[in-house]
Amino acid sequence: MAAPSSSSTCSGVMERCIRERVPPLLTDLYQFTMAYAYWRAGRHDEHAVFDLFFRDNPFGGGFSLFAGVHDCLLFLRSFRFADEDVEFLRSVMPPDTDPAFFQFLRCLDCSGVTLHSVPEGTVVFARVPLMEVAGPLAVVQLLETSLLCLVNYASLVCTNAARFRLAAGPKRKLLEMGLRRAQGPDGGLTASRYTHIGETLFHLSGFDLTSNVQAGFLFGIPVAGTMAHSYVTSFTSLEEVWPQTLSAVNGEHNPVDIISLTKGWLSRVCDLLGAEPGKIHEGELAAFLSYAIAYPQNFLPVIDSYSVGCSGILNFCAVALVLCELGYRPVGVRLDSGDLCKQSLDVHRVFRLCSEQFSIPAFDSLIIVGTNNISEESLAEVNSKENAISVVGVGTHLVTCTKQPSLGCVYKLVEVRGRPRMKVSEDPEKSTVPGRKAVYRLIDPEGHPFLDVVCLAVESPPEAGLPLSCYPLGCNHTALSVTPARVTCLRQEVFSKGQVTQPLCSTAETRAKVQRSLQTLHPRHKRLQKPDSYTVALSQKLHNMVKEIQKGSSNNTNFLLAN
Amino acid sequence: MAAPSSSSTCSGVMERCIRERVPPLLTDLYQFTMAYAYWRAGRHDEHAVFDLFFRDNPFGGGFSLFAGVHDCLLFLRSFRFADEDVEFLRSVMPPDTDPAFFQFLRCLDCSGVTLHSVPEGTVVFARVPLMEVAGPLAVVQLLETSLLCLVNYASLVCTNAARFRLAAGPKRKLLEMGLRRAQGPDGGLTASRYTHIGETLFHLSGFDLTSNVQAGFLFGIPVAGTMAHSYVTSFTSLEEVWPQTLSAVNGEHNPVDIISLTKGWLSRVCDLLGAEPGKIHEGELAAFLSYAIAYPQNFLPVIDSYSVGCSGILNFCAVALVLCELGYRPVGVRLDSGDLCKQSLDVHRVFRLCSEQFSIPAFDSLIIVGTNNISEESLAEVNSKENAISVVGVGTHLVTCTKQPSLGCVYKLVEVRGRPRMKVSEDPEKSTVPGRKAVYRLIDPEGHPFLDVVCLAVESPPEAGLPLSCYPLGCNHTALSVTPARVTCLRQEVFSKGQVTQPLCSTAETRAKVQRSLQTLHPRHKRLQKPDSYTVALSQKLHNMVKEIQKGSSNNTNFLLAN
Repeated sequence: MAAPSSSSTCSGVMERCIRERVPPLLTDLYQFTMAYAYWRAGRHDEHAVFDLFFRDNPFGGGFSLFAGVHDCLLFLRSFRFADEDVEFLRSVMPPDTDPAFFQFLRCLDCSGVTLHSVPEGTVVFARVPLMEVAGPLAVVQLLETSLLCLVNYASLVCTNAARFRLAAGPKRKLLEMGLRRAQGPDGGLTASRYTHIGETLFHLSGFDLTSNVQAGFLFGIPVAGTMAHSYVTSFTSLEEVWPQTLSAVNGEHNPVDIISLTKGWLSRVCDLLGAEPGKIHEGELAAFLSYAIAYPQNFLPVIDSYSVGCSGILNFCAVALVLCELGYRPVGVRLDSGDLCKQSLDVHRVFRLCSEQFSIPAFDSLIIVGTNNISEESLAEVNSKENAISVVGVGTHLVTCTKQPSLGCVYKLVEVRGRPRMKVSEDPEKSTVPGRKAVYRLIDPEGHPFLDVVCLAVESPPEAGLPLSCYPLGCNHTALSVTPARVTCLRQEVFSKGQVTQPLCSTAETRAKVQRSLQTLHPRHKRLQKPDSYTVALSQKLHNMVKEIQKGSSNNTNFLLAN
Repeated sequence: MAAPSSSSTCSGVMERCIRERVPPLLTDLYQFTMAYAYWRAGRHDEHAVFDLFFRDNPFGGGFSLFAGVHDCLLFLRSFRFADEDVEFLRSVMPPDTDPAFFQFLRCLDCSGVTLHSVPEGTVVFARVPLMEVAGPLAVVQLLETSLLCLVNYASLVCTNAARFRLAAGPKRKLLEMGLRRAQGPDGGLTASRYTHIGETLFHLSGFDLTSNVQAGFLFGIPVAGTMAHSYVTSFTSLEEVWPQTLSAVNGEHNPVDIISLTKGWLSRVCDLLGAEPGKIHEGELAAFLSYAIAYPQNFLPVIDSYSVGCSGILNFCAVALVLCELGYRPVGVRLDSGDLCKQSLDVHRVFRLCSEQFSIPAFDSLIIVGTNNISEESLAEVNSKENAISVVGVGTHLVTCTKQPSLGCVYKLVEVRGRPRMKVSEDPEKSTVPGRKAVYRLIDPEGHPFLDVVCLAVESPPEAGLPLSCYPLGCNHTALSVTPARVTCLRQEVFSKGQVTQPLCSTAETRAKVQRSLQTLHPRHKRLQKPDSYTVALSQKLHNMVKEIQKGSSNNTNFLLAN
C-alpha cells in the first residue's frame, strides 16, 4: 500500500547522522600525509582554492543532476577530530612525526573554509566547476575525499532516477525498491533519498514512492509495499484464514462468513472465464483472503506465485469481489515475472469482464503494478508497448546504477596564495582550468539554457542582450560569439566562517528545483540515447590566462642552471 | 607510505555502529504489512524457516566468497524497535490497524531466532542455501531486507577482490583506494573491509593495504598513501621549501643545505640521462624536496604531474639521491597515467643506471606503484606483460564492482510449522527447494572440494569412502553417484536465543579462512574466464520430496468443488 509519511524531515537526526556516516577519518591517508608536509613547511595556512567537477556525463547522457550538497554542508559544519581520531593517526604516521602536528589537527575545523556551490538538484554538465572550496591549504586538502564521496554517488543515482523517469514517460508512477541489492545499507538509504529527488518534466516526480521505511522516516518520502511471495507460500489451506468473518465497510450488518462468500465468487469467476477450478491454489486464496481481512481498503496482492492465469488472477478477482460486495475498494495486483506488458493486458481484460458481468465499476479502476528486474531499457520498452501497467517498481538497476556504477568527480587545486595553479598534463583531457571562477548559464529567448560560460571571478558577468566572445571546451580553441537573452549565476556561496549561509532545502523544495531545472532544459539534451552535447566555454580572459600558463610551463625558467 | 595500523578491531565500536548503519526501519514496508497480516491471523508465532542463497555466481565466475555474516549477527543481536520507530510505523500503516500490533512490535527481538550460516569468508556456489533463518514467522519475515542488504554487497565486493587478486598474480601488492568513488560513505567503508578479506592462494593477502583511514581505525587494515597531484602543483619554486636543511639519519653532522645538494644531484642526473634541464619543473622539485624533508624515510612521490620522462623521474632521482647520501632509504615512485607497464620499465632502467653510476644500491630496491583506473582486465594485462610495477592501486572498478554491481541473494520461505514450503514457479529457475536442510561439501582424494550436496536436515550425513547417490541441480534430474574422500558440514549454528553462539572472528582470522577456503578450490573453478562450473546437488531424499510436492501442486486438491 502507499501511505503518506510523516512530513518531518528530521534535520536534527541527519545532523547527528553525518558524523556517524562520515567521520573525519573516513578519508584517504594521503590527505593526512600531505597535510603534515604542508604543516612542516609552514604552508598549512596558505589560502588555497579547489574546484570540484566531473569530466563526462554519466550513462552516455547529455546532462547530470548535482546532488549531495546538503550532506557536504552538514559534513563541513561538523568537521572536527576527536582525541581517539588523533591518537589513531599518531599510530599510523611515521614515528618521527612532530607531535605538535597532532595538536594542530585536534584544533582544526572549517571556520576558515568558504564553499561556493551549484545548488542541490541543479542540471549540470561535464567540465563545469560545480563547487569551489577555499580556505587554509591543509584544511581544504583534508576535505577532498569526503566531499567527493558525498557528491559522487548522490549525483549519479539522482541522474539515474531522472533518466528512469524520462524512460518511463510522465504517466506511470515509479516505486524505488532497491535496498536489498544496494551497495551497503547507507547506499540503499542514499539511493532512496536521491532517486526521490531525481525529478523531471511534466510536473511529475522522479520516483514517487519508496519501499524503504527509514527513507520515509528520515526524508518524508511516501512509502509503499504490500506482500512478497513468501507471504503467499506460507499459506496452504483456507483453514489458516482467521478471523473467517468480515464486516461491511459501513458496519451495518453482522460480520459475514467470508470463506463461503469467497468460494461463491470464485465459482462465478471460474464460470465467467472458463477456468479449471482444479488448478487454483487454495494456499494462494487463503493468503489473499487473510491479507484482505487485515487490509480491506489496501488489497494489492502479488498474483504470480503459482500461475497468473490459472490461479492468481482468479483468486484475486474472487477476493476483490467479496470486498466490493462489502463496500470496500480493492486497489489492484502486482506482477513480478514474465512478460509484464502482455500479462497486464490479460489481467486488465479480466478486470473489464468482471466489471461488466458483475456490474462492479470499481474493477475499472484497479491498478496493475509491474516489478521484475526493470532497467532503463526495459522501462523504455514498457513505455513504447501497449500495456496496462500504472506503477512500476525498480530496484537493482536503479540503485546500483548498473550502466555506470560511479561518477568521476575530481577535486583539483586551482589557486594558492592568490596565484592560479594548473595541472598541465601530457593528456590534455586531464589538464585543469586555473584560478578562481564564476560560472554563468546563458539562456536563449525560448527560456532554454544553451551555454555555460566559466569566467574569472573578477570579471564582470555576461549581460543579457550583449554579444559575448568565448571558447568552447574541447573545440580546438575556436572562439564563439553568443548573445544570451538572459543570464543566471550558477553557483552561490553556501558555507562561510563555519556556518551554512543558505537555508537548507527540504526534500520537497529540492524536488521542485530539480523539476524547474530539468523543465527548462531543451529536449535535445535530454534524449537518453545520443543527446546533443551542451556547450561549456571559457571566457576570453580565462582562455587567455590558460594559454599564458601553458606557454610559461613549456618555457620553464631554467632554475637549475640559473643558480 | 604504508604503516601498520592499530591491531584493535574495535568490536564495541562496531556493535554501536550497527544500530546506526542498520536501524530496524531500514527495510521494505511490505515486511511490516505482512507482519501485521500474520499477526491479525494469529500466525505471527508459527515456526518458520527461510533460506538465503543466490542463483548465479557474480562476474561470470565459478565461485563466490560469502561475507557479511559478522554484521548480520550484530544486527540480530541489536534488533529492537524504539518508540519513535513504532510511532513512525503507526503513521504509515492504515488508520484502522489494530493498536495492539504496535505494542507487539515494541516488544519484538530475536530471542526466538536461530541462524545457521556458512562461515564468513567461505568459498560458496550458486544455489547452495548459505543461511537458514528459523523462528517466529513475523520476526523472520521482518529480517529479510536487512540480512540481504548486509550480505549482498559484502559478498560481492569480497568476491571481486579475490578476482582482482587472481588477476594480479601472487607477487604484486594490492592497494584499495576506492572511497571517493564508492556508492556512499558506508559503501566505501564496507568495500575497504571486505576487499581486505577477499584473500587468495599463495599465502598472499587479497588487498594488502587500503587508503581508507577509518577502515584502518575500525578493522585494523594497514593504511597507505603519500601524495596527490594537488600537492605537487601547489608548489612553484624552491623558495617554498622549508626548512631548507636536513640532518643525516645518524644525526652525526650538522644539518646540510638541502637545496644546493639537490641541485648538484639534479645536474648529475641530467648529465647521466642526457636530459634537458630546461624542461624540469621547479615546482615539482620543490614539492618532492618538501615531502622528503617531512618524510625522509617514506619518500614515494607521484611523478607524472607534468612529464615523467622530462621532469618527474629526474626530480625524484635527485631528491632520492640526496636522501641516500644522508643515510635515508627512499621508497619509490607512483605512476598515475599513461601506459603503466612501459613507463615502469623506463623508470626502472633509470633506477638501475643511477644505482650503477653513483654506486647507490638502495636504488635497486625502489618500488614502483601503478594507479590509473585499474580494472580486472587491465590488472590481468599488467600481470601478463613485462613491467616493473610492484604495487597496484585499485579504486572505482573494485569498490563499485563495475562488471556487475549487485549480487542477487534472495530469501525464500522453505518451512512453516514443520511442513515444507515450495514456490513452484512457471519459471523453473525461480522454483525453490523446500524444507530444513543440511549442506555438505564433498572433498576428493587430492583435497579439492568437488560437490556440495544439499540434504534434508534429518538425514544422516554422507560418509567418507561411501558412494552417495544425488541429483545435480539444473541437470534434468539425472542421478549421479559420487564417493567423497572426506566430507565437511558447510553450515553451523551461529545465533540462537538472542546470542551469538560462535566466536566472532577478527579480520585476520577471516582472511586466513578465505585463504584456506580458496587454496583448496581446484584451479578449474577459479579461472576468471569460462571456469568449470562446480556441482551442487540434492540428496536422494530431498530430490524425492521436491518431486512429491511438485506432483501435489499440479494435482491440487479441488477445494472449490469439494466443499
